[in-house]
Amino acid sequence: MLDTIDSPDDLKKLRRDQLPALAQELRGEIVQLAAPGGLHLASSLGATDLIVALHYVLNSPRDRILFDVGHQAYAHKLLTGRRKQMPTIKKEGGLSGFTKVSESPHDAITVGHASTSLANALGMATARDALGQDYKVAAVIGDGALTGGMALAALNTIGDTQRRMLIVLNHNEMSISENVGAMSKFMRTLQVQKWFQEGEGASKKALGAVSRPLMDFMSRAKSSTRHFFDPASVNPFAAMGVRYVGPVDGHNIQEMVYLMERLTELDGPTILHVVTRKGKGLTYAEEDPIKWHGPSRFDPATGQSLPVQGLGSSVALVAGEPVRQSWSAAFGDAMTELSRLDPRAYVITPAMREGSGLVGYSKAHPNRYLDVGIAEDVAVTAAAGMALQGLKPVVAIYSTFLQRAYDQVLHDVAIENLDVIFAVDRGGVVGADGATHNGVFDLSFMRSIPNVRIGLPRTASELRGMLKEAMRVGGPVAIRYPRGDTLQAVPNSWPDLKWGEWERLQAGQDVVVLAGGKALEYAEAALEGLPGVGLVNARFVKPLDLEMLREVATHARAIVTVEDNTVLGGFGSAVLEQLSAWGLSTPVRVLGIPDEFQEHASVERVHARSGIDAQAIRTVLAELGVDVPLGV
Amino acid sequence: MLDTIDSPDDLKKLRRDQLPALAQELRGEIVQLAAPGGLHLASSLGATDLIVALHYVLNSPRDRILFDVGHQAYAHKLLTGRRKQMPTIKKEGGLSGFTKVSESPHDAITVGHASTSLANALGMATARDALGQDYKVAAVIGDGALTGGMALAALNTIGDTQRRMLIVLNHNEMSISENVGAMSKFMRTLQVQKWFQEGEGASKKALGAVSRPLMDFMSRAKSSTRHFFDPASVNPFAAMGVRYVGPVDGHNIQEMVYLMERLTELDGPTILHVVTRKGKGLTYAEEDPIKWHGPSRFDPATGQSLPVQGLGSSVALVAGEPVRQSWSAAFGDAMTELSRLDPRAYVITPAMREGSGLVGYSKAHPNRYLDVGIAEDVAVTAAAGMALQGLKPVVAIYSTFLQRAYDQVLHDVAIENLDVIFAVDRGGVVGADGATHNGVFDLSFMRSIPNVRIGLPRTASELRGMLKEAMRVGGPVAIRYPRGDTLQAVPNSWPDLKWGEWERLQAGQDVVVLAGGKALEYAEAALEGLPGVGLVNARFVKPLDLEMLREVATHARAIVTVEDNTVLGGFGSAVLEQLSAWGLSTPVRVLGIPDEFQEHASVERVHARSGIDAQAIRTVLAELGVDVPLGV
Repeated sequence: MLDTIDSPDDLKKLRRDQLPALAQELRGEIVQLAAPGGLHLASSLGATDLIVALHYVLNSPRDRILFDVGHQAYAHKLLTGRRKQMPTIKKEGGLSGFTKVSESPHDAITVGHASTSLANALGMATARDALGQDYKVAAVIGDGALTGGMALAALNTIGDTQRRMLIVLNHNEMSISENVGAMSKFMRTLQVQKWFQEGEGASKKALGAVSRPLMDFMSRAKSSTRHFFDPASVNPFAAMGVRYVGPVDGHNIQEMVYLMERLTELDGPTILHVVTRKGKGLTYAEEDPIKWHGPSRFDPATGQSLPVQGLGSSVALVAGEPVRQSWSAAFGDAMTELSRLDPRAYVITPAMREGSGLVGYSKAHPNRYLDVGIAEDVAVTAAAGMALQGLKPVVAIYSTFLQRAYDQVLHDVAIENLDVIFAVDRGGVVGADGATHNGVFDLSFMRSIPNVRIGLPRTASELRGMLKEAMRVGGPVAIRYPRGDTLQAVPNSWPDLKWGEWERLQAGQDVVVLAGGKALEYAEAALEGLPGVGLVNARFVKPLDLEMLREVATHARAIVTVEDNTVLGGFGSAVLEQLSAWGLSTPVRVLGIPDEFQEHASVERVHARSGIDAQAIRTVLAELGVDVPLGV
Repeated sequence: MLDTIDSPDDLKKLRRDQLPALAQELRGEIVQLAAPGGLHLASSLGATDLIVALHYVLNSPRDRILFDVGHQAYAHKLLTGRRKQMPTIKKEGGLSGFTKVSESPHDAITVGHASTSLANALGMATARDALGQDYKVAAVIGDGALTGGMALAALNTIGDTQRRMLIVLNHNEMSISENVGAMSKFMRTLQVQKWFQEGEGASKKALGAVSRPLMDFMSRAKSSTRHFFDPASVNPFAAMGVRYVGPVDGHNIQEMVYLMERLTELDGPTILHVVTRKGKGLTYAEEDPIKWHGPSRFDPATGQSLPVQGLGSSVALVAGEPVRQSWSAAFGDAMTELSRLDPRAYVITPAMREGSGLVGYSKAHPNRYLDVGIAEDVAVTAAAGMALQGLKPVVAIYSTFLQRAYDQVLHDVAIENLDVIFAVDRGGVVGADGATHNGVFDLSFMRSIPNVRIGLPRTASELRGMLKEAMRVGGPVAIRYPRGDTLQAVPNSWPDLKWGEWERLQAGQDVVVLAGGKALEYAEAALEGLPGVGLVNARFVKPLDLEMLREVATHARAIVTVEDNTVLGGFGSAVLEQLSAWGLSTPVRVLGIPDEFQEHASVERVHARSGIDAQAIRTVLAELGVDVPLGV
């Protein structure tokens, strides 16, 4: 059946009773697509039925369908003319792993971070009404993303301004980890109560009287209790002025179509609460949706993991035994040990237990571990509160998500110079997840905040040394490491490092390369066979090693800085600023990520096209007059 | 009575029936303190009674009392040994206008931005339990701040982790503007219902059985309705697992003491909902709490406004006729006119109608104006949604609050290069509000985001020109202007500007000064009588005027950049980066705000001590060999 569908218009030619079979086909196709690894499987399977229902009822692209986070929308891509391109998903030049406005008119928002769909929908419905237009707006948001403060705050204004929209609450009790938080418990309560489903067909009966708002219906039906329990207060959504319908079975397409047809005609905002299973239709994925959130290569028939070849996959959980440890795992191991050594250590994650390598830690130290849900701002400020009361909290956070807590770092942590450590994972280019997820701004936005220290470990040992040193020096400290594997076997020592001291790796003084972290790997490769070029492990971006920098700047003919960060305001700029402050005019070549968003491709490709890989460094050295042998 | 109180311990020596009289004395003192202008009057009067009750019941500083935003805490300062210093509040070297950890052990958090107290309290209660301690944690949060997503998200984890704390919801239906949002409506509903107060003394009866959690009490009392209305779902706080008590009269100190004594002994988190009046006890302030939020100089007896002398007051609404228009007013006027000219224009504010100069606009264009409450992230992303659907939204936001939406600018607006204009008010040093409010980071954090344009108007005319040009060029555009008054009389034209073109103001080529916005005022003053020094109105920070910069850098012996922004990653760094990219080694002196938080003082003082005022610029010019006459 899928072969006949090239657009939502084709979908509408089907009879309603054909839709479940179509959804089954879509799921089969998604499983095949995901088998090579690196895709968001479980959430896409779970959302397929509701996506079919939405596209059957609405008229995309005129009507706007927004997917929060956007990684669950594979069925949407398949139904909107992108089936042939789907095998290119997350590959260079291919489709994005998320919805992306520039990719298709059917993609209403460009997204990747959670909890943004409701504010976007608010803006769209507002624009529609301001311009006197009359299309429909529907947002699909998971129960995990709905616990994000931004989504809750958007709901506050949505309930206030009462613009017509449908919010499909896709309730699967799972974001990437298990969901935490009181809202999540409450949604489970709703699910158990099934207010509107008591007695067969009750929800349909309620909706049969669709011109009468549900709240009226409720108050009539339960008039005896009205005095004490105003309908506006029976659930938090209704309390906020958003009509609430549900929960309904998110895999019963015909029921969803029936409801969506009616609910999208109602004035004001409506939440349709649908209950889905992540991994729907794939037994092994339903049983372990965390594992199957983003599986690596597997056999679709059995669910057996298969060996992964090469790097560059986007999965957090790599099948089989890794040759080298991931940075996330190295961090998790280090913290597990550190928390044994120091009772003040405490780890906070914004819903990234698995991704941040904290599964083991959370088991070893359940009483010194807090998952605040998808709420990076809360993670950072809760850490501030902990630091004020004597703990040494470590916020484990991806660079791209730290962007969401910039003000909390500045206002809640840095002003009072509190002892909060930021373990900034996925710093630099992340590859297949693309522009929304690249962590290439943190050196710039963190560096400009007073009191913040920034370190870039090059190895897992150095990471451990920096963690230990961060606990000692105090104040806000960001330790930033990349996605992927570390350079060495699993370390177990705690090397001594002095914060702010660089390390001279190669003694040359004519041209000197300064680089830290991932960029240093490239610099080292570039300098093989070039003993005359100086190389410094510039592992501290703030403060700089002023003594070594001054010595280098005084003697070198030219300095080359390399960083896995935007060239605007990053490490290279720090060097330029310092030289300017000293009145030194040593030429500096700043290599980094150019001032444009980097589309998805492998990390190595993005680094190559950005001009920071070994080849690019050698080219620059040659331009500076270094005798670089050709073809090396 | 106040004379006998130098600490919370002294307070505890009073009898309960003396507390109302003490509160009355405190209010009288606060009114006297506020009479010269510039203080947060109405909210401090409203919160005085609950502060007296909290300090009577709790043992600060061992117990932690957190004030959200922190501008309502004057009574707290007066009760904690700072009475003598109170006349220095918000003055250089004096007390902060907010709570500040480094100012007093009784100030639990350093604050200024809204909605952070609950995440801090979560962290503190977590730290207490992790370290096996047993003090109490109480947070005071207004209903306005509670609509901030971060507060709601913190509540989600507070309900989940069930750590003991008291949250005093100070419900005055007012933040700075009237509160908007569904949550606010809901809280009014609660107030009308007064569930726990039906029948005299009902709330006390409920709390009399204090060892039995309230939810149990409820479920027993209303058991007949239990099936359909689980107590966990009767109100959003209870639904999230936070015990809810209220609403009670926030000016009945003895009742609050009674309740707080009991509620702070309960396990888990409790919200005590108290209803207060902003401006309590001062008739004219109760009647117009928006006007009296931060009044300028007035006669305490009559409420009559008195003339204000000099600049540097922190009030948004200046009494009397201003000689020059404020930047905020200039923006508001421009938008009112622009929205007449362009039907796509739309203005969004995060609860800053008055401060952003939008009162007139909101009346002139009520259908093209949206206040999303204290939710900067929602403001920016709603703008993205509007831009996607054909509007040209303008987000009116203070620089310091734009920090709270960094990721939304990057992820929701900039990646797709959407047409969103940011009217960034209070850019640069703001003076009396101090470190939490200085807008000295925006050039750095905005500049590093691809696709973002940044302009610094020097006059209200230039502001209008930039707004017009921003509407034309499209994409994300930040127009940043300072706190205070513009340089010229009210303009009414729409000058033509080309985005990215600087303006040469003085032709000298030996040493050239580059500055825009407020910094240009200083540069102009510094260059009086120095015709040989070049001066450029570097009104565009991104993109730079490459043509003019190249010409300057090629010919000048030295360049001086001046900016009202941190020297890390700002305008000067942009110049350094560009010169480095060109391989030019013209010496550049970067003048800006040093890399440390600037404590409160007048704007002029902070600029002087930062080395960016006219005097400092002349000193630097002299160092560079310019013949600067002494004593000018």
